[in-house]
Amino acid sequence: MPELSALFQPQSVAVIGASPNPGKLGHVLLKNLIRYEFKGQIFPVNSQGETVLDLKGYKAVSDIPSPVDLAVISIPNQFVYPVVKECAERGVRAAIILSSGFGEMGGEGKKSQELIGEIRARTGMRVIGPNCMGVYNIAHHMNATYFWELPRQEGPLSFVSQSGAYGGIFFHEIKKRKLAISKFVSIGNMVDLDHADILEYLKEDKETKVIALFVEEIRDGKKFIRTIANLHKPMVALKGGKTEVGRRAALSHTGSMAGSYEVFAAMCKQYGIILAENSDEFFDTIKAFLSNDGIMPQGNNTAILTISGGPSVITSDTCQTIGLGVPELDEKTKEEIKPLVPPFAALSNPVDMTPQINPANYEAVVDKVMKQSYIDSCIAINCGLDYQEFAQAFVTARQKYHKPVHAYSIANQKIEAIFEEHHIPIFSAPERTATAMKKLAQYWQFKQSRAKTVDSTEVKSSATLKDYLLGKLQEPRQLVARTILREYGIPCVTEAFATAEKEILLFARQAGYPLVLKAAGDGIAHKTEKGGVITGIQSEDRLKAAVAELKNNFGKNAELLVQKMVKNAIEIILGAREDTVFGHVILVGIGGIYTEVYKDVALGLCPLDKTRALDMIQSLKGLPLLEGFRGLPVVNKEMLAELTVKLSSLIEANPQIKELDINPLLINAQGAFAVDTLLVV
Amino acid sequence: MPELSALFQPQSVAVIGASPNPGKLGHVLLKNLIRYEFKGQIFPVNSQGETVLDLKGYKAVSDIPSPVDLAVISIPNQFVYPVVKECAERGVRAAIILSSGFGEMGGEGKKSQELIGEIRARTGMRVIGPNCMGVYNIAHHMNATYFWELPRQEGPLSFVSQSGAYGGIFFHEIKKRKLAISKFVSIGNMVDLDHADILEYLKEDKETKVIALFVEEIRDGKKFIRTIANLHKPMVALKGGKTEVGRRAALSHTGSMAGSYEVFAAMCKQYGIILAENSDEFFDTIKAFLSNDGIMPQGNNTAILTISGGPSVITSDTCQTIGLGVPELDEKTKEEIKPLVPPFAALSNPVDMTPQINPANYEAVVDKVMKQSYIDSCIAINCGLDYQEFAQAFVTARQKYHKPVHAYSIANQKIEAIFEEHHIPIFSAPERTATAMKKLAQYWQFKQSRAKTVDSTEVKSSATLKDYLLGKLQEPRQLVARTILREYGIPCVTEAFATAEKEILLFARQAGYPLVLKAAGDGIAHKTEKGGVITGIQSEDRLKAAVAELKNNFGKNAELLVQKMVKNAIEIILGAREDTVFGHVILVGIGGIYTEVYKDVALGLCPLDKTRALDMIQSLKGLPLLEGFRGLPVVNKEMLAELTVKLSSLIEANPQIKELDINPLLINAQGAFAVDTLLVV
Repeated sequence: MPELSALFQPQSVAVIGASPNPGKLGHVLLKNLIRYEFKGQIFPVNSQGETVLDLKGYKAVSDIPSPVDLAVISIPNQFVYPVVKECAERGVRAAIILSSGFGEMGGEGKKSQELIGEIRARTGMRVIGPNCMGVYNIAHHMNATYFWELPRQEGPLSFVSQSGAYGGIFFHEIKKRKLAISKFVSIGNMVDLDHADILEYLKEDKETKVIALFVEEIRDGKKFIRTIANLHKPMVALKGGKTEVGRRAALSHTGSMAGSYEVFAAMCKQYGIILAENSDEFFDTIKAFLSNDGIMPQGNNTAILTISGGPSVITSDTCQTIGLGVPELDEKTKEEIKPLVPPFAALSNPVDMTPQINPANYEAVVDKVMKQSYIDSCIAINCGLDYQEFAQAFVTARQKYHKPVHAYSIANQKIEAIFEEHHIPIFSAPERTATAMKKLAQYWQFKQSRAKTVDSTEVKSSATLKDYLLGKLQEPRQLVARTILREYGIPCVTEAFATAEKEILLFARQAGYPLVLKAAGDGIAHKTEKGGVITGIQSEDRLKAAVAELKNNFGKNAELLVQKMVKNAIEIILGAREDTVFGHVILVGIGGIYTEVYKDVALGLCPLDKTRALDMIQSLKGLPLLEGFRGLPVVNKEMLAELTVKLSSLIEANPQIKELDINPLLINAQGAFAVDTLLVV
Repeated sequence: MPELSALFQPQSVAVIGASPNPGKLGHVLLKNLIRYEFKGQIFPVNSQGETVLDLKGYKAVSDIPSPVDLAVISIPNQFVYPVVKECAERGVRAAIILSSGFGEMGGEGKKSQELIGEIRARTGMRVIGPNCMGVYNIAHHMNATYFWELPRQEGPLSFVSQSGAYGGIFFHEIKKRKLAISKFVSIGNMVDLDHADILEYLKEDKETKVIALFVEEIRDGKKFIRTIANLHKPMVALKGGKTEVGRRAALSHTGSMAGSYEVFAAMCKQYGIILAENSDEFFDTIKAFLSNDGIMPQGNNTAILTISGGPSVITSDTCQTIGLGVPELDEKTKEEIKPLVPPFAALSNPVDMTPQINPANYEAVVDKVMKQSYIDSCIAINCGLDYQEFAQAFVTARQKYHKPVHAYSIANQKIEAIFEEHHIPIFSAPERTATAMKKLAQYWQFKQSRAKTVDSTEVKSSATLKDYLLGKLQEPRQLVARTILREYGIPCVTEAFATAEKEILLFARQAGYPLVLKAAGDGIAHKTEKGGVITGIQSEDRLKAAVAELKNNFGKNAELLVQKMVKNAIEIILGAREDTVFGHVILVGIGGIYTEVYKDVALGLCPLDKTRALDMIQSLKGLPLLEGFRGLPVVNKEMLAELTVKLSSLIEANPQIKELDINPLLINAQGAFAVDTLLVV
């Protein structure tokens, strides 16, 4: 854990750029420290050494007579580097650089940012920014930000934002939702401290129970994963730079190379970060985690209880669309509810109690629904009548059954007051009650799978790969790849590489027909399109003709690959590649040219365990294709998951591999067979 | 146009169930009429004939001495039918039945609803409801609803809602957005008046400029389409009952059979209804249509102008995700902007002017961006500094270039006041500025395609089909289908139906190899799975063997189908089926067993024109498969669109057809060939 006390609990702060002019941001910064009642010493620094807001000013940090823990810097970019240098030499322990014009603009700015990085590395002074909005720590009464209207009530939420302006949205939205925070850290261009460093600090921070993240770029993915892998607090993230246009914007914003969103999303799933699609979902999810007194769903099924038909219909639609279960009530429960509601009420789930229900019956109906073991959470919708019995029923049942409740309610003051008092969150659209509940269910699901995770065992690196890299092997790369796959227990098709017809015929006599013959040279990509693949060879005559054809097309000495044909098989793609941010990624999906267009693959980060591998397979849209669709063979998903884990182990043991694709991996009733492989080292 | 003046502008209203007890809904109803200053006569009716709120009461409608235009009915369901009957007999011209417990509960309620329907049909009295929240018409000061807090300012928006409770959400949300309305109609169970009837009225209603719809079920799709096809006002819809769970909920709510959402969505696209995904999108879209003084985008490209980097990044992501263009600015424009902004500003689009920009330069920068011909609209984002110059710049440029502006702004009072004053809509999340702009662009796109639409020509019905239906034809249905397809210019593969080997060999000698042989009996579904298809037959020997094999499997006298094999082809599915709500629907998509799982098909309603057919093809996820992906043949999309239109004409001329599928339609360099067909009459 980085020692960040100088950043979060400094005893003394120098405000560099603390101008007497109230229009300047440096003035705002100083004023904020004072107004939020910072308890330590504050030293304004400005070019004239002027007194500001009754505090004695200094011309330079080195003029300050006592030790300075933290420098907050708000001066034009060209002056920043010398000042940072001076701070470091003076023994300042941490600096927050709010000024802009560094990595995000390239050229001089980028160079200056690099120089600052060097100082930090040499002296050990920790730096936040540049190009950020500062740091706020309520418990320490420290508002070292440009924001002059921040909440003062302390709460369990901390927010790490790469974007400063998004900090503005954050404060606006949490105020709207009446949520309270502990710390806000705007990290900007991350010349030194990044998401992982702050998370490492928040992990141990007793005041922080829930963490929100705005991410444009994770620079060191492995460091990030190391940090979060054991961070047992809910983390909710929003990602900027998901698309090409967004990445273009991010690059000019914080100089961020946003990286692949698909890999980021896979990382979140694997390590339990709840990823929001957009700002509304982000703040709703944060609110959900901070509500219900910590009661969380222990499963994926919800009950919708309402007196408002239409809104419950669209909430039901949302549930099904996002995959939150809405199981029908059992007949016995329906029978019990029937006498408690008007005859035209709906009993199935959604339960529409109708506005005509006797308010005295709310409690019994809600109780009978929420007590069911197959109901894990509850959504309360009321656009109608303001009976406190409605709200009270959910409060009572929640406490009794320890299942969370989300609410939608409009223009019902009594109801809303009761919900708020008992921390039942009210959302601003009926659909949003469901989306936020799904996020909680996802977290529950993650915790379940984490509980099952076993550490991967030590696996030896490949001797074949080592020899190949040393130039000791003369075989085609495909053959090397096959040998390595077999070393790690991934079966390959029966095959032989050869140039001579004689050898090929010999193989055929042993292996039997049907066969496939391919041009095998390392340099031949997209073989099928170039006529380099002949399938369905049933006889020696056809085989001879095929050999002649390929030699005619690809040269007399062309290396050929003859394979036993795998019949009645499903094409799978199983591969690994190195992501620039998060390291090796495993992908599994439906193979074949048609489905390539549909990009139906699931990603997971190395190392993978079987639970996660099965999850990945289950998440494929083309799952029915593995389950005997229209007479297709049934794929043993357990086996495919095991192969996926084996590939992960292979990659873990041989991290020099940049890319290893098995495409297709053919699976039929007889087993799995790697047929084509691509290896990049 | 139904004569609905008695509903919207009645001169006299009887409130049936107008209780003196303020806790009763019938009392609320009466009070609402009075409080909203209804100018005509009001007659309370209750069982005792009591005076209510100083208005003389009557025991029955028939006791009222003067004519009654409209009856609003709020009494227990079992008393409703006799009262409605009495109203009709008494000459009441229209009735609004607010009571619940009819079609939505089945049994007695459903029967009672049917009886009411009969009265309406017999007497001509128009009926709204039952199970609804009533009708509100601001211009007429008529609040005939249960809602006691409705906006009184008149505006251009009218709302037709199947759900009453959703009306509550509607009023809540338009108040939040400061929008003004003209009419609200809650139609409930639609025993008589449905969406189409109200739309027919609103089409001619001068006060209504924009229409919002909440739909659970369209019962008569053809009537609905006839109404909207020439309704030249923007319509925004939200659909309940999109999913199975949602439909279950809708059924118990208004007794609605929600129908296929996919077909509903296709209908909206084709007839220019802007369909929202959820409530937030619904109200945002309504707001967008009511803003910017009617200025609409004339294209799909937007410019994002900001001083807030992070929020502009996520807005960019949204644009790309939903398909709103964010073109980079040209070099010349960038050069012109450069001197107006700090060196670390971003110039590409998003244009991040940064908080450090000189406020005097906002106007010039915004002008230089919005004037570009390749920019059709603009998104303004400011989470930072409250300079009125920022807002004013957009107001000026919008007027100058007639391009709409959407804004996101927080905690900037001056900016927000200027935007509001000039009807530039502010949305509550940065992403939502983009989503709402996309909806406007969609409407522009629809109007473009509508302009191009030509009425379909008269096409003759099929003689073959007629003969077949009369039992005059003995051929297998597949052959009938092929003949019909050929009649309408849809080419089929060269083929012959035969039982004798002799005939098959004769065909082969004429047609040449390779061939495909299939079992052709009408009753054989999923032929491939049952071994009923032999492909790649290259010689007479193989053909004989194939004939023997199929006769062995499917019987000595099995009807066989021999076809010329279509090589190097893309499999397309082209079909038509009858939707219970909207009539015949045409579908076109990528065929084949793999893609069947991915359901990559586009739907369009009959009759289709070529523009829409091309749109459908362009919307396929698998579009690259038609464009020469990985050496696949290139599909002539124009030709495929023409075939799609031909199928539409065929169906239009022969509406007895319930289903006609061509699967696959094989397309290669030589043309298109219907290979398998399914005909259901």
